[in-house]
Amino acid sequence: MNLFHQEPKVVRQMIREGKITSPTSGMCAGYAQGNLVVLPKEFAYDFLLFTQRNPKPCPVLEVSDVGSREFSITAKGSDIARDIPKYRVYRDGVMQGEYEDVSSFWRDDLVSFLLGCSFSFEAPMIEEGIEVRHITENCNVLMYITNIPCRPAGIFSGPVVVSMRPIPHEKVVKAVTVTERMPQVHGTPIHIGDPEYIGIRDIHHPDFGDPVTIKEGEIPVFWACGVTPQAVVMNVKPPFVITHAPGHMFITDMKNSQL
Amino acid sequence: MNLFHQEPKVVRQMIREGKITSPTSGMCAGYAQGNLVVLPKEFAYDFLLFTQRNPKPCPVLEVSDVGSREFSITAKGSDIARDIPKYRVYRDGVMQGEYEDVSSFWRDDLVSFLLGCSFSFEAPMIEEGIEVRHITENCNVLMYITNIPCRPAGIFSGPVVVSMRPIPHEKVVKAVTVTERMPQVHGTPIHIGDPEYIGIRDIHHPDFGDPVTIKEGEIPVFWACGVTPQAVVMNVKPPFVITHAPGHMFITDMKNSQL
Repeated sequence: MNLFHQEPKVVRQMIREGKITSPTSGMCAGYAQGNLVVLPKEFAYDFLLFTQRNPKPCPVLEVSDVGSREFSITAKGSDIARDIPKYRVYRDGVMQGEYEDVSSFWRDDLVSFLLGCSFSFEAPMIEEGIEVRHITENCNVLMYITNIPCRPAGIFSGPVVVSMRPIPHEKVVKAVTVTERMPQVHGTPIHIGDPEYIGIRDIHHPDFGDPVTIKEGEIPVFWACGVTPQAVVMNVKPPFVITHAPGHMFITDMKNSQL
Repeated sequence: MNLFHQEPKVVRQMIREGKITSPTSGMCAGYAQGNLVVLPKEFAYDFLLFTQRNPKPCPVLEVSDVGSREFSITAKGSDIARDIPKYRVYRDGVMQGEYEDVSSFWRDDLVSFLLGCSFSFEAPMIEEGIEVRHITENCNVLMYITNIPCRPAGIFSGPVVVSMRPIPHEKVVKAVTVTERMPQVHGTPIHIGDPEYIGIRDIHHPDFGDPVTIKEGEIPVFWACGVTPQAVVMNVKPPFVITHAPGHMFITDMKNSQL
């Protein structure tokens, strides 16, 4: 079965039934996939305010009602606790385990945040003729912790984490204008060129993800990254958090072109 | 003293000292002015979520820290309780009075929301050669309650309120593209043409504001309006709310071009 051209609700159902447990990259072409952060209500206001103050690293696609397991706006009929192939459960900031179904952990005081993911802007970049190196080299995007502080909100604070894509110098402007159209998935880059300006000492040693080839004539271009909100939540070590496992995203019914 | 070309912090200081008590239209050209809604913390999460779900009628420019009287991002050094020429104080949904200074009412549990205002997109419209009729006719913009529901959030719900500007048919597309650039001040229109489609029975009898001339060849164009969040808050009749008085806005240090 080719999942590339499949409808999101069909794929979500297959995930729910345990028929898909793999990373979601390449599934449901053209539809937005999102990062999941599930928090107890007592942390929800500060976290929502944090996203409002830091829209580039933390673009919110949807916030569930308290206790609800459905993203009713972006994925009607979805089950947040079962429609992701792999979840992580954290207690007091420590990962307790990875699970394919978190319904047994669900509580009435949980609020689910769905945050935009750079998958959504990589497809339009490729369509515009810009190679995305980590896709070509079939590895995870490079990510770095910068010296740029997020605007704090309540208990949440921390540095902006960025992803990096090496772009041929003659295509850098195009990379800016393509991603400018998509503010709900990090939007324009936050830095172009010398990594030292944003506190990155060694471009070849990312804090997360895998090193990729940077060719002659290519400029490193940095976008705010969805790892930022997860890192910020983990800093606070809330008693209970559920997230997606890396690469295992929530697939919405929203087209990337709607973002 | 010409306030049109004055710096926002100078004008805010004059307001704070009681030297300006008039509506702020025409002050600090090029700088964004905002709507104020101040609520007790217990209502802040639902209201912030409401704005997240309804960004066109409720574009948030800034949310203060709990108890703070400063909009530290958009207006460093400001005093929310004194820098607006006229406020309204509501108790249980009933207006208690209008005041030029609300510092005596301030409480440690208050959260202040600053919401984008269509003043910010009218200046660029005029620069692009689009007449703004209610400015020409020196009256308040027309506003209507529509049949379009906001997405509810917690205790907050209600219909979208729109403002209307009659636009010559050959300039309607320009009016869309000019406002598209400014998503933080309502962005693109939500309806163009026949008012009945959005539940408006009589275009000549707005629910708020003053009727204006609609000339032959002009199309009514409707934008989501900042009255929406105020109307939605008042529906709930919270025990205590402070807002700006109509036309008496908070002047920020942000240029409209940054929105």
